[in-house]
Amino acid sequence: MQEKSIKELFLNSEIYQNHELTFSAWVASNRGNKKIRFLAINDGSTVENLQVTFKGENFDFNLLDQIHIGAAIKVKGRIVLTPHAQQPLELIASEFTLLRDTELDYPIQKQAINVETLREIPHLRHRTSLIRTVMLIRSSLALEVHKYFENNGFLYFNAPIITSNDGEGAGETFEIKDSNLKEPFFGLNKKATLGVTGQLHAESYAIGFKKVYTFAPTFRAEHSNTKKHAAEFWMIEPEVAFYDLNDIIDLADDFLKTVIKNTIIKHPKEFEFLTKNVNPDLLETLNKFITTKLSVLDYRDAIKELAKVKDRFEEQNIHFGLDLATEHEKYLASEIAKGPVAVINFPKSFKAFYMHQNNDNETVASFDLLVPGIGELIGGSQREVNYDKLLTRALEIGISQDELQWYLDLRRFGDSGSSGFGVGFERLVMYVTGVDNIRDVIPYPRTSGSIKM
Amino acid sequence: MQEKSIKELFLNSEIYQNHELTFSAWVASNRGNKKIRFLAINDGSTVENLQVTFKGENFDFNLLDQIHIGAAIKVKGRIVLTPHAQQPLELIASEFTLLRDTELDYPIQKQAINVETLREIPHLRHRTSLIRTVMLIRSSLALEVHKYFENNGFLYFNAPIITSNDGEGAGETFEIKDSNLKEPFFGLNKKATLGVTGQLHAESYAIGFKKVYTFAPTFRAEHSNTKKHAAEFWMIEPEVAFYDLNDIIDLADDFLKTVIKNTIIKHPKEFEFLTKNVNPDLLETLNKFITTKLSVLDYRDAIKELAKVKDRFEEQNIHFGLDLATEHEKYLASEIAKGPVAVINFPKSFKAFYMHQNNDNETVASFDLLVPGIGELIGGSQREVNYDKLLTRALEIGISQDELQWYLDLRRFGDSGSSGFGVGFERLVMYVTGVDNIRDVIPYPRTSGSIKM
Repeated sequence: MQEKSIKELFLNSEIYQNHELTFSAWVASNRGNKKIRFLAINDGSTVENLQVTFKGENFDFNLLDQIHIGAAIKVKGRIVLTPHAQQPLELIASEFTLLRDTELDYPIQKQAINVETLREIPHLRHRTSLIRTVMLIRSSLALEVHKYFENNGFLYFNAPIITSNDGEGAGETFEIKDSNLKEPFFGLNKKATLGVTGQLHAESYAIGFKKVYTFAPTFRAEHSNTKKHAAEFWMIEPEVAFYDLNDIIDLADDFLKTVIKNTIIKHPKEFEFLTKNVNPDLLETLNKFITTKLSVLDYRDAIKELAKVKDRFEEQNIHFGLDLATEHEKYLASEIAKGPVAVINFPKSFKAFYMHQNNDNETVASFDLLVPGIGELIGGSQREVNYDKLLTRALEIGISQDELQWYLDLRRFGDSGSSGFGVGFERLVMYVTGVDNIRDVIPYPRTSGSIKM
Repeated sequence: MQEKSIKELFLNSEIYQNHELTFSAWVASNRGNKKIRFLAINDGSTVENLQVTFKGENFDFNLLDQIHIGAAIKVKGRIVLTPHAQQPLELIASEFTLLRDTELDYPIQKQAINVETLREIPHLRHRTSLIRTVMLIRSSLALEVHKYFENNGFLYFNAPIITSNDGEGAGETFEIKDSNLKEPFFGLNKKATLGVTGQLHAESYAIGFKKVYTFAPTFRAEHSNTKKHAAEFWMIEPEVAFYDLNDIIDLADDFLKTVIKNTIIKHPKEFEFLTKNVNPDLLETLNKFITTKLSVLDYRDAIKELAKVKDRFEEQNIHFGLDLATEHEKYLASEIAKGPVAVINFPKSFKAFYMHQNNDNETVASFDLLVPGIGELIGGSQREVNYDKLLTRALEIGISQDELQWYLDLRRFGDSGSSGFGVGFERLVMYVTGVDNIRDVIPYPRTSGSIKM
């Protein structure tokens, strides 16, 4: 028979009262004496531990005393509700097997360990309550992303990771080569890089499928050693044919609110943990976001607001044409909008070539969704549908027409326009958990100068 | 108001009778005369087209006549059920906008195009009924995979793609380097390759989360130019602590049956199309698989069966130690098991170092799940939990202990064993759609010598 999970047991404790259940799990703490012993065990289904109580003559209390944190055990027992105790229920053990103990240098012990130290042991750190909680929420967020798009009629589209196109023209790419051969794997003179975006390919599928999204790893050879940059991260990129800038901002807003709301519902205990240990305002902030209409702010107005308080910033040259830095983004979200805000109509000078050019000839129909504490969470735009304008802009920034012809051709073949956005998935996990370093929300972070395991 | 999809309209046609609805979609065919015109349109939600009928004085029939296949249009009209006509319903148009026509060199026209030609235009081929159908089923299969694991209490785990470990020790990896710099991005003497599996990392998360799975792109610098090999493909890798070989085979069987069954239910029209156009036995074969208990065959018995008919094969040296070729796998599935079969207990000589060594000292607790027509769909094993045996085997095949120490250490830290398997997602799509070339089930295939767009 399948074992129940500890999460299921806690959710349906009334049902299991007095039932005999078996759990395979790991020891989180071990206390007691020669007559009674309490093992708190965890099976990874929730941040909550299950207390197992050993008493009577069935057990070797000397052996129980010596079991270490992290040991794998199997235990059978009877569920007893304990509404007046610290924990809502316990398992009174009747049978017990120590499957595999930990050796003495197992680094996760009772004392709290700081996150920097934990980053040295990415293969073990998820057995702490903090990283366990983060990864449980990360997993649920990912599933809610898929469900959101499925419920809204989107096709899940897999863009190629290895590409000969550099979508943003940013140049911060990784090149790949065959380890074994000197000749190029994909053919002579074929450049092969790791994709920085799936968007161009997603656009081709939006024409025909109407609503598509990607959810896949993305790569940037960025040397910025900040709290929010990684060389490898997951990105979600929806693309919808027939949508304009307003439609796609509405989608971004509804998307965020829905996945966050559903994730909170699934994880009461994990959010309780984060509120206690990471950020006391976390749930309040998230709930406010879910229930508040998203603000929209024109870039020109954003510049005016920033100019008023320019002394607050490191970059004080606030002018039309400024590419907002994180400090500006955080100010706009925290102080002006007092919550998430979509800044729209950025100058075309620092935005990607494929964005729809507004009639003012200076700005593009783009948006950045900024959130307090993090800055940019989502960036998106309406795409330029005019073949000539698109080509001219691509050539201006040095992209070769040859390489881009397939993408340009979409405009000749029934493409009446589309809009889309990209969400850095790790930034979303940071926003939802309150954890402020990207290295702590992805299992094995890859950053400039660091590739562990 | 949100537009309905054509799929939703067909599913609930009774509800929409006489309703006024609007569709943005693309023209699939255009026929008629100066008084009445029929446009079949498709919005990508289903392989079925919606017939739009134009009559009366509202319309410019000369303009309608000139609309090309692939054009983007917006049309409003009234739904009329037509139970006695070829199509179950039609839209009687009242308003119409041609949003964007196709130019004359648009390659997708009325005539059927063979799949080889379509591979030259991966940015357009999904607008044919065949590739549209395949991609709709691919998307649903992916979502069913996520749902299956969620419903069974698994954590969705993202293994790193860029890695310094080569999980299989196979050496067929892509190396990556920063395009802009000569110094290595991840640090001096740090090899960085694209992962060939997420399994080793998934094992570390199974210890602590119990049930985890990956679903991510995977890379092999394989020069085999076959119908079932690609350099980039998606892989699903569940890993479960406390599971042995039998448990994990049961999981593989239940997993496959569930995701296939649910996908078939979602796509009656698409499977009707595939049965008509790709393989007349497709649904029968899949339904038989869903309802039949999976056969299990020991490798030694498989060798005996193959030896009986060795003249049928190109590789006729059938002996203990033979790594089964696709021809052998197909024979075992089609002729011996007459359906999917799990071959178990392979010789350790050609299997990965981390597989549990059986007591006979010759075989490992592994399985390959073979299906008719394709061969291997799933490969998996129980992992070796004994530290010394694991280390000895790794050294035997030339893996450095230094690199592997973190993985070996799992066995010292509460790892009482786990089992897992890997499913090549594209092979699963091939099996479910009946399409026999991997290039036709992934949007932008990357194979030896080929990287389009």
